[in-house]
Amino acid sequence: MTQFSFISHLECPKCNKTYDEKQIQQLCECGSPLLVRYNLEDVKKHVTPEEIQRRSASLWRYHELLPVHNEKDVVTLGEGLTPLEKLDKLGSTYELDNLYIKDEGIIPTGSFKTRGASVGISKAKELGVKQLAMPTNGNAGAAWALYAAKANIKATIVMPLDAPQITRKEVHIAGGDLHLINGLISDAGKVVAQLVQDAGVYDASTLKEPYRIEGKKTMGYEIVEQFGWKVPDVILYPTGGGVGIIGIYKAILEMQALGWIEKDKFPRLVAVQAEGCAPIVDAWKKGEKESKFFEDSTTCAFGINVPKALGDFLVLDSLYKTEGCAIAISEQELLAAQKEVASLEGNFVCPEGAATFAAAKKLREQGWIKQEEHVVCLNTGAGIKYPETVEIEGVNTLQPGDSLLTSKR
Amino acid sequence: MTQFSFISHLECPKCNKTYDEKQIQQLCECGSPLLVRYNLEDVKKHVTPEEIQRRSASLWRYHELLPVHNEKDVVTLGEGLTPLEKLDKLGSTYELDNLYIKDEGIIPTGSFKTRGASVGISKAKELGVKQLAMPTNGNAGAAWALYAAKANIKATIVMPLDAPQITRKEVHIAGGDLHLINGLISDAGKVVAQLVQDAGVYDASTLKEPYRIEGKKTMGYEIVEQFGWKVPDVILYPTGGGVGIIGIYKAILEMQALGWIEKDKFPRLVAVQAEGCAPIVDAWKKGEKESKFFEDSTTCAFGINVPKALGDFLVLDSLYKTEGCAIAISEQELLAAQKEVASLEGNFVCPEGAATFAAAKKLREQGWIKQEEHVVCLNTGAGIKYPETVEIEGVNTLQPGDSLLTSKR
Repeated sequence: MTQFSFISHLECPKCNKTYDEKQIQQLCECGSPLLVRYNLEDVKKHVTPEEIQRRSASLWRYHELLPVHNEKDVVTLGEGLTPLEKLDKLGSTYELDNLYIKDEGIIPTGSFKTRGASVGISKAKELGVKQLAMPTNGNAGAAWALYAAKANIKATIVMPLDAPQITRKEVHIAGGDLHLINGLISDAGKVVAQLVQDAGVYDASTLKEPYRIEGKKTMGYEIVEQFGWKVPDVILYPTGGGVGIIGIYKAILEMQALGWIEKDKFPRLVAVQAEGCAPIVDAWKKGEKESKFFEDSTTCAFGINVPKALGDFLVLDSLYKTEGCAIAISEQELLAAQKEVASLEGNFVCPEGAATFAAAKKLREQGWIKQEEHVVCLNTGAGIKYPETVEIEGVNTLQPGDSLLTSKR
Repeated sequence: MTQFSFISHLECPKCNKTYDEKQIQQLCECGSPLLVRYNLEDVKKHVTPEEIQRRSASLWRYHELLPVHNEKDVVTLGEGLTPLEKLDKLGSTYELDNLYIKDEGIIPTGSFKTRGASVGISKAKELGVKQLAMPTNGNAGAAWALYAAKANIKATIVMPLDAPQITRKEVHIAGGDLHLINGLISDAGKVVAQLVQDAGVYDASTLKEPYRIEGKKTMGYEIVEQFGWKVPDVILYPTGGGVGIIGIYKAILEMQALGWIEKDKFPRLVAVQAEGCAPIVDAWKKGEKESKFFEDSTTCAFGINVPKALGDFLVLDSLYKTEGCAIAISEQELLAAQKEVASLEGNFVCPEGAATFAAAKKLREQGWIKQEEHVVCLNTGAGIKYPETVEIEGVNTLQPGDSLLTSKR
């Protein structure tokens, strides 16, 4: 049987201590998240980009670079290889000749959180986990509850009352152990931390288990594969916990080490936040290595309402290393962008994804992005999960037999 | 430049009259829908299944067998090649060793209607259409409005007040011309018919333009390709207008003519309806060629609340020819199946899709499906578009600082 994964061990990016991946691990002793390391030299000998391209349309096509040893432990709903589409009409409006959407709404559960859930739950299953707990702004909890159900793992999910309504229904129909909290994700986090400490359940909080990043990094692999194993110039990412941007940066480094892409050519990574919750933007502006807790945070882009991310130092590092930036968008700007993307291009993106388009527009206006550069806006979820962001006023209501020509059109 | 499409002409399946596909066509003079014909002998020489497998993960991989001549007229959001996944836990519950889901929720707009919209709008664009109108139970209108926006076509959409709320928001954000009606899709159809007659707009009603079927038939191509160019034994399809089942049957016939699959081996096609709206089931039980208008129809599976389908005779023909059947499911059965699929397999399916699982269970119990047969349940949309089908009672609500161990778990 050929080797399915080339995972080697876990490593702390702060203190460099290493850990055994065959045991359950959470954070490093020093408090930092752990990163997964692979035997990349062996992967190089074992598989080529050409071979990967012939595999099925799922993120598991990169299985050598994912942490699960045994294929039978893979918990999949067919997630990954989401569309990367060129947006000519919107690009022309923004004066961007090569504007793309990476549409993560086209995935099971309608959110990119699914990538982390598929890989995280698969590894948890392999490690023999029977119960997990996590705080969530909604979409991650929904995804983890559904994949946990498939893996026979009990999932305790704590989400704010204000999280998108549909996500609590997803947890419920999956048979998850759902709890709401009259507060923010940081309050939910404290509840989960207490449960983890007292009851010894697996902590699936963002970055407190090392495998969610591995799922998210596949976005980086896919973007590069979809560009013919080249990196674009700019990738804009709506940043809450920041796992996606950390993952994409990790993917680029791995592909460079594998010799699959040009060495030292990075996409400039852009962390997009809402003005109502912009801790990374504040830290980046000051050139700091870590962010500060953002008080009284609020935004309709609920997934990025994260006042202080555990991996903030990794997010900021990826911005500095790739000569990227961080930018904050107003509610008005992101809602206008959401409408513009749908009415010009037909993509109904989520508010978080919309923020990246507003950011691309702004950065183009400021000259930070040049007209001919290849620019990827990462839409993290389907707009259909956020009905409340679209308001309809005064729609015509007909009675049977009415005519459209004589009614009030 | 190589030929993109091998479309030849349009043909009436009732009276065999042919029509020019380079002009706008709606129904046949005799009132029947028209079907698209291709030069299959030329396709055979031009492309192989092996070549198709190497193409990008979109329904446009079958472009030779789609009606659009010029690739630049293709209007795409990256739709198609949705997951086909084996469901072992649910299969074991149903005593089915080879139960599969074809998950059409994992597609732009979260519904299989997207296939018809992508192909239908692309051909409309090629034909120079500037305005279209259609009645809809929600999802088709949403998909057509979004693709029409991308194609710069004005879309007038008429949907019942009871259609899923999210679908009117999709039409609105796309900039569509939205009208609600206090009635059924059949009432909406009359309004549209009047507008078409009086104002000469393109009629995009189900089967009144010939190209929606072509989009839907790609489900048949994909299922066969995903089974390694073999047909499964049974395909269960939630049947409203029935375009999907007509399309899948057409795809099978085309692939047989192309020599891509075994001649004369058909999947048994099953039309699944709700007990509250079962005109096809009634007609099939009596061995009739057409259905009768189903009075006072009602079901929470809104997409299959179609009291009389224009293509009923084609649906029934496909059931008779493939030795399939038609079956009606109660509301209770389909809601129970929806819960069962999510909690065992992690797929949050729509109520229409859930009905096919309830049907598979019943037909297995009756012995109509055998244990070892390969069975495909076609889930036509994402459950997240139907929040009202999931009721949550008595969820625990915490205050910041509360503990899960001392709260009422």
